Amino acid sequence: MRATVMYGAGDVRIEKVPDARVTEPTDALVVITHACICGSDLWGYKLMPPGGPGRAMGHEAIGIVEAVGASVRTLRTGDLVVMPFAYSDGTCPFCQEGLNTSCVNGGFFGAGQMGGAQAEAVRVPQADGTLVALPVSRDDALMPSLLTLSDVMGTGHHAAVSARVGRGHNVAVVGDGAVGLCGVIAARRLGAEQIVILGRHADRLEIAKAFGATDAVSTRGEEAVTRVRELTGGFGVHSVLECVGTDDAMQMAIGMTRPGGAVGRVGVPHYEAIPASQPAFYRNITVSGGPAPVRSYITALLPDILEGRIEPGRVFDRTMKLDEVPAGYRAMNERKSIKVMVRP
Amino acid sequence: MRATVMYGAGDVRIEKVPDARVTEPTDALVVITHACICGSDLWGYKLMPPGGPGRAMGHEAIGIVEAVGASVRTLRTGDLVVMPFAYSDGTCPFCQEGLNTSCVNGGFFGAGQMGGAQAEAVRVPQADGTLVALPVSRDDALMPSLLTLSDVMGTGHHAAVSARVGRGHNVAVVGDGAVGLCGVIAARRLGAEQIVILGRHADRLEIAKAFGATDAVSTRGEEAVTRVRELTGGFGVHSVLECVGTDDAMQMAIGMTRPGGAVGRVGVPHYEAIPASQPAFYRNITVSGGPAPVRSYITALLPDILEGRIEPGRVFDRTMKLDEVPAGYRAMNERKSIKVMVRP
Repeated sequence: MRATVMYGAGDVRIEKVPDARVTEPTDALVVITHACICGSDLWGYKLMPPGGPGRAMGHEAIGIVEAVGASVRTLRTGDLVVMPFAYSDGTCPFCQEGLNTSCVNGGFFGAGQMGGAQAEAVRVPQADGTLVALPVSRDDALMPSLLTLSDVMGTGHHAAVSARVGRGHNVAVVGDGAVGLCGVIAARRLGAEQIVILGRHADRLEIAKAFGATDAVSTRGEEAVTRVRELTGGFGVHSVLECVGTDDAMQMAIGMTRPGGAVGRVGVPHYEAIPASQPAFYRNITVSGGPAPVRSYITALLPDILEGRIEPGRVFDRTMKLDEVPAGYRAMNERKSIKVMVRP
Repeated sequence: MRATVMYGAGDVRIEKVPDARVTEPTDALVVITHACICGSDLWGYKLMPPGGPGRAMGHEAIGIVEAVGASVRTLRTGDLVVMPFAYSDGTCPFCQEGLNTSCVNGGFFGAGQMGGAQAEAVRVPQADGTLVALPVSRDDALMPSLLTLSDVMGTGHHAAVSARVGRGHNVAVVGDGAVGLCGVIAARRLGAEQIVILGRHADRLEIAKAFGATDAVSTRGEEAVTRVRELTGGFGVHSVLECVGTDDAMQMAIGMTRPGGAVGRVGVPHYEAIPASQPAFYRNITVSGGPAPVRSYITALLPDILEGRIEPGRVFDRTMKLDEVPAGYRAMNERKSIKVMVRP
């Protein structure tokens, strides 16, 4: 089958690889109908050193179950399913607490020996605990929004939950990528009154406003912190959704948080230590977040998509074939595309 | 009057200073009956560079109201009051939310131009919002425990609240100083089932056990992390109370937290950035805490002291006169005393 393999910064190839197949009794084999490129894939695209073995790419997908292992109980061949970026058994203590990304039998697609979803098919371990069958057909107009349940919508929601967004609160969202934009949806959905989006791209800020952002700030650093404070009565915001993952973004996030407020971070951190510890301490600011347990959030978010209350699929501004994926990485890396959907 | 002034590391003196007095209509003048030396005072005792102006010391006290300003409404001369380490107006948005240590008209005793409580008397700004009248006499046997409401008991409680201690949880307390010991009380009071104290002093660990600790770990670093995980089923604890404030202590705290758990930090941080950001991220660990809003916690904690359910006053193992305060600093700094009570 064909699959996407990254060999180093800027070097993404579509290659023939061994067919994905069921190897464990708890596996499902899923033929991909929809996948996408993630902002987190761009970290490798910028920084991966060349010379090592290739890395299978892609961790977001919708597809059709083609085969299941002997002990899979809840899925059958032909089911249309959404696949979260992490697999999980659904039964361990962490899954039971809703933290599927810490499943003791879990792991991540496109990591280690796991295949990726920017491919014709993928082996899904722990299929019963991982996959969610969708009650629509594969050509449904909701498909882009449903695809975001595999990562970005659940991740934006996790940022909002981790930042303790509540009714009537004011919120800042640092980052206007697909996760940040979904964070705006999530903040609004949880009752935020004022939502400030921080970003520099007019097209993305337009979408943010359509999703519920009330203000936009295009400066950075101290200037942005000052502006957000001005917009929120001088004290800063109750909640900051940090959707970038850089030291500068965290510094800004902590700077604009109101005393007693919280930062929810979901951008894969490219910093060793959380900066601005002392301001965070003296203002009793909480820092929370991590890899979103998107599997457990699907229950809450799916009805809102099916019933049209939220439309996160608007973050996709291009659709490409599998062979075009390298061009998709380029477009996202050059900020010419917000998020690329892949139809293998 | 006589007061404690610090001039540099190891240099604490009792000096004649101008009498404390009411200067604002919202002030009270409090004659100190009980004060104490705080673990946080020892940071200056170790590190303060010499040559600058002296710093008035002490921020924990019980005393008698000697005079009040014209607009003070809730207190009268002769009241026995407990004084939290921060003053606050009780009416600003942060005070209303219970975060008195971020009061817009607030501040800290023994900081800037503010007098200290290791003295014969102290001027208390925002007296109505700050002081709490005690329904006992100044010779009551409960006085040591009531004195801890000014800082250490409220701070231990804040660590537990920030670390989201809940019924049936397991908890680790990093640090066997007075705050850590009070953290044990707080964790138990909030329903923790297993409480592991980390410390190296047999006398303190004894008190911790009397306060409700179920296990003690005397190693440090990775060794301590491994031991705490062993004691808690392999995953680590739901909540860690970080009561030290060093980089090493935070590193340990994050290392022993279970995925999805929380660290409540109340040790004044002597580190620039929160270490171990990436492990904290990948395990969805929350870091929270800061200067404890002890004023707002008095309501909940006072009845438990008055009715004998908790006895945090046991952290005091020496009582000294004001003139002996320099010896008290020495004893605490050399770990010969857990916490020194001062009777001016």
